[in-house]
Amino acid sequence: MSLRFARSLKTMTTSKLNFTPNNYFTQNNFKDVWSLTNETAALASTNSKNKDRGLVNLGQGFFSYSPPKFAIEALQKAVEEPLVNQYSPTRGRPTLIKSLTDLYSPLYKLTLKPENVLVTTGANEGILACLMGILNQNDEVIVFEPFFDQYIPNIELCGGKVVYVPINPPKDLDKRVTKGTEWTLDFEQFENVITNKTKAIIINTPHNPIGKVFTREELKRIGDICVKHNVIIISDEVYDNLYFVDEFTRIATLSPEIGQLTLSVGSAGKTFAATGWRIGWVVSLNPELLNFASKAHTRICFASPSPIQEACAESINIALRNGYFENMRNEYVKKYKIFTSVFDELGLPYTEAEGTYFLLVDFSRVKIPEDYKFPEEIINKGKDFRISNWLINELGVVAIPPTEFYIKEHEKAAENLLRFAVCKDDEYLERAVERLRLLKAYI
Amino acid sequence: MSLRFARSLKTMTTSKLNFTPNNYFTQNNFKDVWSLTNETAALASTNSKNKDRGLVNLGQGFFSYSPPKFAIEALQKAVEEPLVNQYSPTRGRPTLIKSLTDLYSPLYKLTLKPENVLVTTGANEGILACLMGILNQNDEVIVFEPFFDQYIPNIELCGGKVVYVPINPPKDLDKRVTKGTEWTLDFEQFENVITNKTKAIIINTPHNPIGKVFTREELKRIGDICVKHNVIIISDEVYDNLYFVDEFTRIATLSPEIGQLTLSVGSAGKTFAATGWRIGWVVSLNPELLNFASKAHTRICFASPSPIQEACAESINIALRNGYFENMRNEYVKKYKIFTSVFDELGLPYTEAEGTYFLLVDFSRVKIPEDYKFPEEIINKGKDFRISNWLINELGVVAIPPTEFYIKEHEKAAENLLRFAVCKDDEYLERAVERLRLLKAYI
Repeated sequence: MSLRFARSLKTMTTSKLNFTPNNYFTQNNFKDVWSLTNETAALASTNSKNKDRGLVNLGQGFFSYSPPKFAIEALQKAVEEPLVNQYSPTRGRPTLIKSLTDLYSPLYKLTLKPENVLVTTGANEGILACLMGILNQNDEVIVFEPFFDQYIPNIELCGGKVVYVPINPPKDLDKRVTKGTEWTLDFEQFENVITNKTKAIIINTPHNPIGKVFTREELKRIGDICVKHNVIIISDEVYDNLYFVDEFTRIATLSPEIGQLTLSVGSAGKTFAATGWRIGWVVSLNPELLNFASKAHTRICFASPSPIQEACAESINIALRNGYFENMRNEYVKKYKIFTSVFDELGLPYTEAEGTYFLLVDFSRVKIPEDYKFPEEIINKGKDFRISNWLINELGVVAIPPTEFYIKEHEKAAENLLRFAVCKDDEYLERAVERLRLLKAYI
Repeated sequence: MSLRFARSLKTMTTSKLNFTPNNYFTQNNFKDVWSLTNETAALASTNSKNKDRGLVNLGQGFFSYSPPKFAIEALQKAVEEPLVNQYSPTRGRPTLIKSLTDLYSPLYKLTLKPENVLVTTGANEGILACLMGILNQNDEVIVFEPFFDQYIPNIELCGGKVVYVPINPPKDLDKRVTKGTEWTLDFEQFENVITNKTKAIIINTPHNPIGKVFTREELKRIGDICVKHNVIIISDEVYDNLYFVDEFTRIATLSPEIGQLTLSVGSAGKTFAATGWRIGWVVSLNPELLNFASKAHTRICFASPSPIQEACAESINIALRNGYFENMRNEYVKKYKIFTSVFDELGLPYTEAEGTYFLLVDFSRVKIPEDYKFPEEIINKGKDFRISNWLINELGVVAIPPTEFYIKEHEKAAENLLRFAVCKDDEYLERAVERLRLLKAYI
């Protein structure tokens, strides 16, 4: 059981059950941040402040708008073919595997083959398949902190132990607008936690929630340390088409030795504004390594949804021709410009996003009334849970408290921050800006 | 490691890997029956016998025809709504949960509530979620043999141990057409294998591959034994709309105590001829028990594909009004009539299917040339693998060798059998019949 989860241990609701469930779930019997925030939002939507104006939801990272027309049409067409409604090969449909090798070969500057690609039922299942494919009981997996919350149960349910290494925030995070590059790793600290039980590391670039795009130099140092100690690299690159700096570096490309140790995870949901489509993939230059993720995937889901795979294949083919990826990046630069303007006005510091569709904003300067009543279930959580609760109830704006992405000991680093998702249409972001202007009264 | 898998242990291909993958996958390093059969078929399709006439594939249970028009149209419409392309609640979309409670309430003769239903990413993930939700290391799970092959790795990957109890075939299976009811359980033997480590049993009705629909009396005896020993029942009911006897009994309905221990798994893929849609569900009268499957599901897949969930919701609503389920059953009675005619002609015995879309046929009387050359990889497998291989290569008909659904010690029971899938359009089945007439020369 992780330290992070230990604190959430509650009186077991299972005390009167006549069966013993998986201990993992009784020991980690807490409400996840998504359920907690969504439930708070549902309740707050009808309070006296919000019932007429409605909520502006920048919490969970789902898109307020449709996937591109070509993707929708591709799915509508795919479903008309009888066999496209039946089982796909567990490894993925040949059409999608071909589109993925076409997409990634130039990015890897190599000719990828079908054996370099595995299609999964969303990136979440992709990461689980990677972990289940390689982990034995008590293997250690290093995770950089803050981390996407699903990594932890995915590792622990596969019998692994999580070892945390912080990404250190800039010291004056609460004083000025900072950059992703200012959030830094202590490489010595990273190398020092590696033991003979260390099986893998999970990295995430572009990084949720920081918005940091790891630099070529950072990734090379991480990769070289992994090669030195023979540590498998699971690289969560689900936002790989959403970077706003000159270069997005794929760690697998930095040396042949690093490539042989790396499993890189991608997502159709993030790429095509379709988080409900549940198609992801794993790319690896090491087919033998990927094969173990594939074996696990076969047992987890057997195969992934066929018509959606077919639609993704066609969408990638079209996107490669029509400039979709570049247009999307440009649109996101604009979305961030709209959204960050209000924080510039208010003088609330944030970390400029180099990638993803998130923004971390520092709320240290916002004064929440001291006698504000918070619900019982967040009293023992980080201060950011209280800021988030207040913001939802009083301003009708939903954001995610990022201490959920930290272990208890380190959550001070994020207790004044909130994570906003900007994957919304521009008009929606304008409404968010307008609503957030109300913060002025509390600064 | 199960006995079944021990025999498949081969020289590890991983000997030169510089990492140690999950031992489970190196210890169970065999090719599954689906890959093996599909690969044999791909090779055989171009041999001198088959290259002009093509293969007739009655192997894997996928449909040769489209889902009903109303289901296709429902999916095409669903995808036009922006938010239907985004994350669904991990528990399932409210629309689908509502349709499922509408569908199952009359069948359970109870008013089911949303907390009685969990949507999963196919029934396979549903069963994995049930197992992951309840199993701790070394818990025992009883499986009736023959079993659907995925159960075994699903149990073992969750740390469970499989305990096998045979479903005994009729003694003269090779002499005459038999009935599903003639395949019987030894209830004493079943009760005797229960220990204080027994956490659960998996039952499957209608049963793949036998086609048996367990009777009310059989299920009551199984259920009462489970209640007596507090054993959770995972009831795989994915063919619950494909039964051809008067009554399909749901074990959960047989007593309140049995209901409290049961998790029943269903499948949109089987119901709507859409095995590639990957939507399944778990129904339970015990919300607390179901909650543990839900917790596991959240970590495995997070959520299931949204537009397909929406299409399934609408399809169930329509099917409840337009007689779809009954029409489908009538069509399958006709399909079996077309297909079994050739075995009646040839005098090859089979077990009449009471449900599913499979037929088990006894090939004892078919004489395969003694000097026939079989590939290396099936030499150590059951005789049925050789019959299957010969049938694919010489007659161009694909069927599944069912010893894959047995442990080594018991596979004699099925070594002369082949499993055929009849979920094909009538014209395709007629072609199969014509091709199978060629068996006359070998009897």
